[in-house]
Amino acid sequence: MKAAVLRGGEIVVDDVPDPVPGPGQVLVRTLACGICGSDLHFRRHGRRIVEASADGGLPLRTDTDRDIVLGHEFCAEVVEAGPDTLAPRPGTAVVSVPVVLTGGDLLNPEIVAIGFDNDLPGGYGELMVLSAPLLVPVPEGLDPRLAAMTEPMAVGLHAVNKSGIAPGDSALVLGCGPVGLSVVAALRARGIEHIVATDPSRGRRAMATTVGATAVADPSEVAAVEAWRDAGGREPLVVFEAVGVPGMLATAMREAPRGTRITVVGVCMEPDSIEPIVGINKELSLQFVLGYDPFLEFAPTLTEIAEGRLDVAPLITGEVGIGGVAGAFDALADPEQHCKVLVRP
Amino acid sequence: MKAAVLRGGEIVVDDVPDPVPGPGQVLVRTLACGICGSDLHFRRHGRRIVEASADGGLPLRTDTDRDIVLGHEFCAEVVEAGPDTLAPRPGTAVVSVPVVLTGGDLLNPEIVAIGFDNDLPGGYGELMVLSAPLLVPVPEGLDPRLAAMTEPMAVGLHAVNKSGIAPGDSALVLGCGPVGLSVVAALRARGIEHIVATDPSRGRRAMATTVGATAVADPSEVAAVEAWRDAGGREPLVVFEAVGVPGMLATAMREAPRGTRITVVGVCMEPDSIEPIVGINKELSLQFVLGYDPFLEFAPTLTEIAEGRLDVAPLITGEVGIGGVAGAFDALADPEQHCKVLVRP
Repeated sequence: MKAAVLRGGEIVVDDVPDPVPGPGQVLVRTLACGICGSDLHFRRHGRRIVEASADGGLPLRTDTDRDIVLGHEFCAEVVEAGPDTLAPRPGTAVVSVPVVLTGGDLLNPEIVAIGFDNDLPGGYGELMVLSAPLLVPVPEGLDPRLAAMTEPMAVGLHAVNKSGIAPGDSALVLGCGPVGLSVVAALRARGIEHIVATDPSRGRRAMATTVGATAVADPSEVAAVEAWRDAGGREPLVVFEAVGVPGMLATAMREAPRGTRITVVGVCMEPDSIEPIVGINKELSLQFVLGYDPFLEFAPTLTEIAEGRLDVAPLITGEVGIGGVAGAFDALADPEQHCKVLVRP
Repeated sequence: MKAAVLRGGEIVVDDVPDPVPGPGQVLVRTLACGICGSDLHFRRHGRRIVEASADGGLPLRTDTDRDIVLGHEFCAEVVEAGPDTLAPRPGTAVVSVPVVLTGGDLLNPEIVAIGFDNDLPGGYGELMVLSAPLLVPVPEGLDPRLAAMTEPMAVGLHAVNKSGIAPGDSALVLGCGPVGLSVVAALRARGIEHIVATDPSRGRRAMATTVGATAVADPSEVAAVEAWRDAGGREPLVVFEAVGVPGMLATAMREAPRGTRITVVGVCMEPDSIEPIVGINKELSLQFVLGYDPFLEFAPTLTEIAEGRLDVAPLITGEVGIGGVAGAFDALADPEQHCKVLVRP
């Protein structure tokens, strides 16, 4: 099959072997697959990400010197079931959490992350194998492009769940990349009434407003918490850090009012410096979050999209074929231009 | 009156003016006053502590170039009430949260920290003025030396409350200074069954066992979380960081199992480096805590001491008069020797 392959730090188009479904697995054809910030990260820092994954999270078995077909935000249609496998009928549109159960022992399988693996191609290729028990059928009539947004939106839903934000609390979202925007949309779906979002990009701020922010600000012009106050923000405040570069946490801690809960959803790969005395004096908390619950948060996110409570269409700013993936990686560097680009193999 | 005075970074004995109680205030004679780690900190880093206090917490109005009578962990007896003030009868033993309401306007007073102020002497002097509405009478028959432990033990109780630890959870306390030991004692009083405490000092570890630790370890010999596992530790784990030096948080985060909640009660005055990716991969949380609630946690701590549920006697390792304060500051550097030294003016 044809695929966009990560090879030696570059994305190249090549023919790779068709994946073959084993027992309990299903061969699917990719309908749409989002390009994720972590894919861009992985191209540059793959080795460090593989190393860090050993320490909690899902350990990756990836050899970054070998070919990898990225892509873990996908919607696909069933082609055929593997041996002795019950699966939805061919043509059924499905989504799945991006892991595959392998290893032969169905009761005690190995769990492999799809989209970061050498042997299990992700959604930047024409075909994938997925695990039958993990498939979630897409509701009739839902555009596969919107269904492909399930995975990134589940990240926002999970961050909101872990933050413990309650009705009447106020939210400040730092950074309106795809992660920050999914948090904004999830806060809106949760009924939070006061949602302030900050981003230096005017285009991103406009998107934040579209998906649910009640006020936006440019953090290069005004301190984020000041902008939140100017917009009528009242405590208790829950901050969502969705930028993920060094210094964001220290700044958020310095600016935050007493008792603020800071949910850290932006992935900062470098060591970062904080001032504990600031956290202590104000009794702040930092809750680091990752991913989502495959059962309690993933499928419900698809439902929220299908029923229109999560507004994802505005986030999709481009579509490319397999040949366009490399260019899309470059284009995504410009936040005025793009938010979520879908690959349609 | 005679007092141990902080003057130019040194503790000297001198005569200072007797404090005079205003309306709503009470003159008291100090019976016992603990030397706190924050007093030692304040001697060295007073200016930085005053600066940091402006940013959350109770702002200090202290001029560190002028005399200060330290001491905020006290038990005292009533001498006389100020003008138009209702107070317990003279001779009554009392404790109080270490703040005084001043400024003349009783309905909207200024709140001043006692023990870090130029004008309101703390418990290292013979006399203090306290606020009548904040006085908590010491139960009949309770040794004033034990009552003086109310303040530091309330710190441990508050940390345990903020940690959200629940029955069945396991605790790991890093550092067995007075703060760590008060956390251990509060965990025991809360009924937590599995409490592991670490400290490089054998003497401190022995004290931890006395006040409630079910296992102890020397962190210079074994990683703290490994020691916790070796002692039969089972998740969920709540860590209490009570050392307060740079690097403790990063180490705790690296060692902690997935989902661990880290309560930061040790006061680290310097910037500190953490690895956000470690927190993210394991969905850790950091809850910074400070002090205690003056109503919900301070008086109840005195009750817990009086009724024998908080075992504080083993923590008191020395007593000095006003002339012995300077020497005690030096002696407290040796953890084998001392935990809590009481000043008895």
